[in-house]
Amino acid sequence: MREFILYARKAVTSSNFSLNDLPGSGGRMDLVARCVCNALWISHDLRRDSCIHVVAYGAPNPPRVISFYGSLLRDVTPDERNIASWIKKVQKAKNLNPGIRVRKLSFQQLIAELASDGRFFYILHERGRDIREVLPALKEDSTFVLGDHLGLPAKEENFVTRFPHEKLSLGSTSYLASQCIAILNYELDRIAIAGRRRNAPVGI
Amino acid sequence: MREFILYARKAVTSSNFSLNDLPGSGGRMDLVARCVCNALWISHDLRRDSCIHVVAYGAPNPPRVISFYGSLLRDVTPDERNIASWIKKVQKAKNLNPGIRVRKLSFQQLIAELASDGRFFYILHERGRDIREVLPALKEDSTFVLGDHLGLPAKEENFVTRFPHEKLSLGSTSYLASQCIAILNYELDRIAIAGRRRNAPVGI
Repeated sequence: MREFILYARKAVTSSNFSLNDLPGSGGRMDLVARCVCNALWISHDLRRDSCIHVVAYGAPNPPRVISFYGSLLRDVTPDERNIASWIKKVQKAKNLNPGIRVRKLSFQQLIAELASDGRFFYILHERGRDIREVLPALKEDSTFVLGDHLGLPAKEENFVTRFPHEKLSLGSTSYLASQCIAILNYELDRIAIAGRRRNAPVGI
Repeated sequence: MREFILYARKAVTSSNFSLNDLPGSGGRMDLVARCVCNALWISHDLRRDSCIHVVAYGAPNPPRVISFYGSLLRDVTPDERNIASWIKKVQKAKNLNPGIRVRKLSFQQLIAELASDGRFFYILHERGRDIREVLPALKEDSTFVLGDHLGLPAKEENFVTRFPHEKLSLGSTSYLASQCIAILNYELDRIAIAGRRRNAPVGI
C-alpha cells in the first residue's frame, strides 16, 4: 500500500473551526485537504491502494492522527471544503465514514507502529537523494513522510531516521506539500506500470 | 513563459455563485481553483514566469477567459475559496487585481490569438505521446491545453491542431486536471534546471 504521512503543525484538533476560513481558523486545513485530495483521488476514481495519515498538532487536543483510506472512503468529494467538513465531523463523532479513522496518537507513536509492521520510510527532504537517482529501485509499497508549510520538526525527522529510511528530494524546486504528493504518486505510477509490463506474460 | 489553458465547461460566468458550494453552484469552480493553485504556486512563492487562462463556458455569460498572471498577482492565497472569491469579484468589477484579467473571448479566439504570437501548443491527451519520450526536447516556453473533468470537446481540440502542436500524455493513469498541471510543472522544472546546468560557466 502507498502510504503518506503529513505532519500538520497547526491543524486544529477539534471540530471547532470554520469551513469558511480553513487557512486561519482551521490551522491550514486547506493545505491538509489538498494533500488528502492528491493522495487519494485520480480522475473519476479513488486510489484504492493508498492511504494518508494527517498528524494534527494544532489546538486544542493535539496530537491526533486522522487517517483516510482510499479503499474504504465513502461520500467524500475532492474539494477542500468537503474534505475539511469530514475532518470536522469525524472529530466530533467517530465512525461516521468507514474510510476515515481518528486516533489520539503522536507522530512518533504512529511511526513506531508502522515500523513494527515492517514499513520502509521515505522522508521528503530538500537535501535528500534525488528521486530520479533512486528510481527504479524506489519501493512503491512504502511510507512517505512530509512536513507542512512549516516543515517537519528536526526531532520528528530524527526519530524516523532510527528506522529503515531514505531521504528523498524532488529536485531543486520547493513544492507545496500537496504538489509533492501528486508528484510522488506520478513517479510511483510510472514505476508500477513499468513493473507490470516487465512481469506480463510474453505473447499476451 | 509557461502558459496553461483550462477549458472549464461548467464554470459559472458571473459572480452569482456561492463560495460555500464551489462544485455545484460554481460549476466545478473547486477544480478551476485547484488548477490555478498548481499553475502558479510553489512553496512560499508564486511562479513569476507562468500564467493560466481559464476558459469558462458555464451559464449565464459564456464564453469568458479569466487569466491569472504569476508575475502580477496580488493578495491571493492558494486555497480554493480564496481563488474562487477572486474569480467571483473580478467577474463583477474588473481591474481589481493587476494579476487577473477577464475577457469576453472564446476558446478558439484565445487559441488564435496565442498562435499569432507564435506559441506552440501541447494538448494533454490520453492517447498523446508520452511526455518522457518528448523530454528533453519539450519546449518549456509553450502553451499547455487541458480539459476539465468532462474533457476537451473534439471540435476545440481539432481547432488547436490547425496550429503547431503536439499531443502529450502523462502515462496511463488519468489524473485530475490540477494534478496534470502539477506534474507538468515538475517535468518542466527538471528540464529548466538541467538546461541551466548545461549552460552554466565551467568552474563556477
